[in-house]
Amino acid sequence: MKTKESKDKVGSIPEPTLRRLPWYLSFVKLLQTEGHRYVSSPRIASGVGVDAALVAKDLSYVKLQGRTRVGYETTALIEYLEEFLGFTQRHRAFLIGVGSLGSGLLADKGLNQFGLEVRAGFDVAQELIGTEVAGVPVHHIDELALRIQAEEIKIAILTVPILQAQLMTDRLVRAGIKAIWNFTPFRIQAPADVVVQNTSMYAHLALMFTRMKAAGERQGQGEA
Amino acid sequence: MKTKESKDKVGSIPEPTLRRLPWYLSFVKLLQTEGHRYVSSPRIASGVGVDAALVAKDLSYVKLQGRTRVGYETTALIEYLEEFLGFTQRHRAFLIGVGSLGSGLLADKGLNQFGLEVRAGFDVAQELIGTEVAGVPVHHIDELALRIQAEEIKIAILTVPILQAQLMTDRLVRAGIKAIWNFTPFRIQAPADVVVQNTSMYAHLALMFTRMKAAGERQGQGEA
Repeated sequence: MKTKESKDKVGSIPEPTLRRLPWYLSFVKLLQTEGHRYVSSPRIASGVGVDAALVAKDLSYVKLQGRTRVGYETTALIEYLEEFLGFTQRHRAFLIGVGSLGSGLLADKGLNQFGLEVRAGFDVAQELIGTEVAGVPVHHIDELALRIQAEEIKIAILTVPILQAQLMTDRLVRAGIKAIWNFTPFRIQAPADVVVQNTSMYAHLALMFTRMKAAGERQGQGEA
Repeated sequence: MKTKESKDKVGSIPEPTLRRLPWYLSFVKLLQTEGHRYVSSPRIASGVGVDAALVAKDLSYVKLQGRTRVGYETTALIEYLEEFLGFTQRHRAFLIGVGSLGSGLLADKGLNQFGLEVRAGFDVAQELIGTEVAGVPVHHIDELALRIQAEEIKIAILTVPILQAQLMTDRLVRAGIKAIWNFTPFRIQAPADVVVQNTSMYAHLALMFTRMKAAGERQGQGEA
């Protein structure tokens, strides 16, 4: 199951490592609730289905010292990983586009648990302006730039229709936003100093459908 | 901006191609609403910020013939890509775990537009059982296996707490589920004939936070 590793780095950490660390964190949390006080890196490897050498290498980046034979203390490892991944800090964000997906994200308690505090939503729909969705106030999009500056917001969650995705991106960048979490299937373009994080849910659907089809065809040919 | 391409294939299509096709689709939809009847592959390339040769190569997989000089008819390309990516079919699914994220997904109209029809949600919370969330009925998790078989459901959306993720995966697999769309940060393990599609929202948050930090440090050093 080895795949070629991307050489992209985020700061000093390879991006694939950053993608895997949250898996380890989840698994160690599970072990902790099951009463395990220590966890070794081979145990994490088998738990998440990743090569043991890779887990050891990934954990070497977080610079937490495991003990020979017993491994890492679960509580310490959890705290360390959460801190390392930025989940313990409060990152304030605005959400742009309070449609069905946007409302769903406002309601998701997971974002808060993982360090993202959504302070407000923005939309153009008159029936939404001035209301709260899941306890988060919704303002008119025309107030966006002023509020970004007043509250010194650096992160925007983009859940607008695809036709507005690039226009809204340009507007966010002009207003001083430094990171855009893009949930639209649109490939937005932003200046190099703005972080764009794509979460392409619907593109994942296409991948899943195509994988299912391929698996079905394999079975049809008796290869499964 | 060239990055090394993964060699993974889904059926006969390279996975990176499958990931990019939805971007092209979104962009061509935008052009269509702006009144463009034709679109060339270099135009798509500049619109989505991908190398033109790569776009041409990706589009060669979908086997739709463009015309010299004018390129593809936008309407035909949209229809073709939507069909190719599975968005025009109805894929029936169950959603497991009607918490804040699960409820949000049930409300998201985007899933339906992209070919996924969520027929029911499942949970253990008594106050949810027998109700509807965004028009979707919620059943007790104990009815899961029976309903999967009765409705011949092949796809499950997993939005349970991480501590239940693997247990529920095992249960879904035993009940005959063939594809799991995993929204938990837990790295679930399933037999090779079951498609697992991870949408690791919270892992993406970690990536975004770390990228922001790295960008901030670059600026602090005057390199930005």
